[in-house]
Amino acid sequence: MPSYTAPTKDTQFVLHDVLKISTASTPGYDEMEPAFTAAVLEEAGKIASEVLAPLNPVGDTEGCRMENGVVYTPTGFKDAFQQMQAGGWPGIDMPEEFGGQGMPYVLGTAVGEFFSGANQAFTMYQGLTHGAASAILAHGTEEQKATYLPKMVACDWTGTMNLTEPHCGTDLGLMRTKAEPQDDGSYRVTGQKIFISAGEHDLADNIVHLVLAKIPGGPAGIKGVSLFIVPKVLVNEDGSLGPRNAVSCGKIEEKMGIHGNSTCVMNYDGATGWLLGEEHKGMRAMFTMMNEARIGVGMQGVAQAEIAFQNALAYAKDRLQGRDVTGPKNPDGPADPLIVHPDIRRNLMEQKSFVEGARAFLLWGATLIDASHRGGDKDADGLISLMTPVIKGFLTDKGYEMTVQAQQIYGGHGYIEEWGMSQYTRDARIAMIYEGANGVQALDLVGRKLAQDGGKHVMAFFDMVKTYCKDADETDGMAEFVEPLKRASKDLQAAAMYFMSEGMKNPNAALAGSYDFMHLFGHVCLGMMWARMAEASLAALAAGTDDPAFHGTKLATARFYMARQMPMTATHLARIQSGAEPVMALDAANF
Amino acid sequence: MPSYTAPTKDTQFVLHDVLKISTASTPGYDEMEPAFTAAVLEEAGKIASEVLAPLNPVGDTEGCRMENGVVYTPTGFKDAFQQMQAGGWPGIDMPEEFGGQGMPYVLGTAVGEFFSGANQAFTMYQGLTHGAASAILAHGTEEQKATYLPKMVACDWTGTMNLTEPHCGTDLGLMRTKAEPQDDGSYRVTGQKIFISAGEHDLADNIVHLVLAKIPGGPAGIKGVSLFIVPKVLVNEDGSLGPRNAVSCGKIEEKMGIHGNSTCVMNYDGATGWLLGEEHKGMRAMFTMMNEARIGVGMQGVAQAEIAFQNALAYAKDRLQGRDVTGPKNPDGPADPLIVHPDIRRNLMEQKSFVEGARAFLLWGATLIDASHRGGDKDADGLISLMTPVIKGFLTDKGYEMTVQAQQIYGGHGYIEEWGMSQYTRDARIAMIYEGANGVQALDLVGRKLAQDGGKHVMAFFDMVKTYCKDADETDGMAEFVEPLKRASKDLQAAAMYFMSEGMKNPNAALAGSYDFMHLFGHVCLGMMWARMAEASLAALAAGTDDPAFHGTKLATARFYMARQMPMTATHLARIQSGAEPVMALDAANF
Repeated sequence: MPSYTAPTKDTQFVLHDVLKISTASTPGYDEMEPAFTAAVLEEAGKIASEVLAPLNPVGDTEGCRMENGVVYTPTGFKDAFQQMQAGGWPGIDMPEEFGGQGMPYVLGTAVGEFFSGANQAFTMYQGLTHGAASAILAHGTEEQKATYLPKMVACDWTGTMNLTEPHCGTDLGLMRTKAEPQDDGSYRVTGQKIFISAGEHDLADNIVHLVLAKIPGGPAGIKGVSLFIVPKVLVNEDGSLGPRNAVSCGKIEEKMGIHGNSTCVMNYDGATGWLLGEEHKGMRAMFTMMNEARIGVGMQGVAQAEIAFQNALAYAKDRLQGRDVTGPKNPDGPADPLIVHPDIRRNLMEQKSFVEGARAFLLWGATLIDASHRGGDKDADGLISLMTPVIKGFLTDKGYEMTVQAQQIYGGHGYIEEWGMSQYTRDARIAMIYEGANGVQALDLVGRKLAQDGGKHVMAFFDMVKTYCKDADETDGMAEFVEPLKRASKDLQAAAMYFMSEGMKNPNAALAGSYDFMHLFGHVCLGMMWARMAEASLAALAAGTDDPAFHGTKLATARFYMARQMPMTATHLARIQSGAEPVMALDAANF
Repeated sequence: MPSYTAPTKDTQFVLHDVLKISTASTPGYDEMEPAFTAAVLEEAGKIASEVLAPLNPVGDTEGCRMENGVVYTPTGFKDAFQQMQAGGWPGIDMPEEFGGQGMPYVLGTAVGEFFSGANQAFTMYQGLTHGAASAILAHGTEEQKATYLPKMVACDWTGTMNLTEPHCGTDLGLMRTKAEPQDDGSYRVTGQKIFISAGEHDLADNIVHLVLAKIPGGPAGIKGVSLFIVPKVLVNEDGSLGPRNAVSCGKIEEKMGIHGNSTCVMNYDGATGWLLGEEHKGMRAMFTMMNEARIGVGMQGVAQAEIAFQNALAYAKDRLQGRDVTGPKNPDGPADPLIVHPDIRRNLMEQKSFVEGARAFLLWGATLIDASHRGGDKDADGLISLMTPVIKGFLTDKGYEMTVQAQQIYGGHGYIEEWGMSQYTRDARIAMIYEGANGVQALDLVGRKLAQDGGKHVMAFFDMVKTYCKDADETDGMAEFVEPLKRASKDLQAAAMYFMSEGMKNPNAALAGSYDFMHLFGHVCLGMMWARMAEASLAALAAGTDDPAFHGTKLATARFYMARQMPMTATHLARIQSGAEPVMALDAANF
């Protein structure tokens, strides 16, 4: 049976040895001493492995069911949800004034990875609530905040995001859901929304739907979209629950995975809603939390790769099959464990070097969010805005790929549901799609983010890598990590230059290479994180660490990433530089 | 709803314009005139799209069920199976003396792709029967052939292959199933086999199990394994069916996909069996049909990629979302179709260039099987033996990857089962695992096939590519296709040289690069097929073809493969040349 152990040690290494958060200048970081974060991570890891992980296959097998309009979550979800609430986990990084713990986003991300790895479908209920609460926090009136936030921070009420309609996903300008103004200042919301995660369920007394809709008579297209708060149950002035609102779940979708999360068709039949933020500025309100939501999805990619890797590794050590070609490693047994075989190791090292590199990248990104939100650091804000599509697109693509590789270690057993490996791939698959499909992330990166503020942020990124390489080069033993990073960074710059020169003449020359660029960028980021981790481990070893095996392993894993993954950047560059012609040559009719 | 149209035109192009089968010297090929194969392909395409494809989602949703030891296939499977039998399709390439149609393997492969694309789970019932019948044909006594083959060729009786046991998959030397000799020449077979596709079902009167087992007292390990015929129902001397044999299905596995095929745990409780071939030579008997079985699995990779591509393409043309960045293409509609977007095209071109290149590679491989089996061509036999792991491993890896990309085109709808795209990925996933997991294919390629007969076959392959490039270079317009092929072939040779020089000192230096080598080899093969297809299309255009659009499309697709996929070979080489150290550095305990 599959199991999950939270990677607390690795997370601590990233937070303190690499990112050195407790000495960073971001407000609140001075409280993030290693002993404190260790205690939080241990506690979170415990609930992840003991409470959430055992429910993961239950959720997958049972799924959600709807009876007479009521949606029931899988056995055990309700109890577990209450345990999460009791521990205060849903509000870990929410403001204390609304009942949150007020901790930094980076710590929320660290524990979020554990919860998501142990049970993605379950963790989405609180994740979506977090997203909706963030939107109300950023754009709500004082009254709205007072009404909804304490309940949502505690997850007594959960939240949803309603964007997609049957005929429009990415292109929200085509939206048909309408919100008609009423005399009392409210709106009547009418329309159908699909793919609404956690749209209806039995975990909370109320569900606060955030719904994008058009106010009749407003601007056409995306500029006429506004955001509304539409609670499942109307809230009385005293904060108590009143009558049901005219919103209902029409259907639960049958999905490939995340069966434990109810994905609903939501029908708004003249439901009462209230404007959140300004009229016709719904997309802006959405976008303020998009970075966080997308980083949260990138986290899911890492999280599923982690649990899949853990189980693949255990199986590779346990399953006896064949002999080491250089001589038996388990001479008294009938065969050697799978892990002796070079190609099994190649597979495992790809998983390990991705998961650890990606975790570091993700947590570094989270510190930039904190620097921006808590410290008002505009440069950090620009940098994370640039890298958000990379975190979302690259980490979910590779995360999925790694779950598939982990499944492969199991041979035929990987294909049998009972063994659990199939679920990780099926659950991980959605992260490449939702919150903007990965092709849209690539478009966002190349079509918007590269040129944002006159290309300032990407230039800052290149400078940062250059400065890092220059500094690191002066440390003994770093050359082997810095050189591949330099080469990869040169490839990335060459790709950006190609886009600049060719994209001027023909935007397709840039867009045809956008997906490769996103992956090229991802490898440079993971390469940099591996260099930084190697540097931290070299320093620890030089300082006489009491855990030389851990740091030795880090160095070996860094070497693997440099030798085996960084060469991909050259291929991505070659593909990018082949331009638009090979991609765009065919008429649609001739495909 | 998803649909399937057999790619008959493309198959005809490969068979005649590229492979020119009707003028080849292989016995039986002279009857393969274009008009004849066209008629066969049309008829097969019709049954694939009209009978098998509609049952594909039915099989996925219903699955197989067992009641009181009886296994029921999904609604409609039995009727469809009878239609396939009535058309003589199961025996298309089987000898006429046993009721087959006696056609070449290449034609069987061509139609097999259609059936498998339309419904993989269904087609496996006859595919496994074909495999088992081939084994009896090659190793059976005259009496065994007379008893089983006419029934199996007609699929009145189906067949299975029983290799895996709970504790042993790849490492069959660990096998525990035993076969005790009886006085009448039969054996009592006892043991448990798992993952037995089509192990029990309601489509046929009898099931002929081929079972690997050990005769007590024989050699230890893999050298003591023999192959047995164990029919579900014993056959009387007059050919009529007698009593049930002591073999039963213990359980149907819950799998990630191919739900329409019953994957059974089979229990042999002193079942009566008969030796097939020689004592202790069971693996040899298995291996004679392994090439064909593995090529058949490679075919499944192509087939699932084809149906996924067809549906992704249709959706990309139909779904309106966003605007072409260079100006509206559907100005009167609310948005442009997805296919205008460069990254959607990049995705579609990757699918298209893979599927068509892979089909050509597959069918070329099938002509080598015919040249070997029908023409006794030893060189062809050596070449296909070398390339079999590439066909199996590369085509199923990439085929799966393409089904995932096709699913991505659908956005959120790709994740909803109702839309059908999820099934293609779930079904395609198994092909990377069964008939030897793809890591085992890579091991077979690098550990066995490269050095086979003193490296003769790989040298012949390199010579063939070199000669081809030299000849093709003299044709106007071929340089753009030949140059990338030359470069890729040089990368492949450099990798082989690296294995030869470093592998001598340390076998892990070769094995750590085996997976990359398999993919590098695959790109060279597809590159060569694309060059050959480009050459055929240039010739057709020069000769004034009446279908210039088809050939223009081929050339554009060839250019895409050269520009966008062939650069992968450099990365694979770089990874290979990084050697064993990055892969093997860690102690298993330190992972």
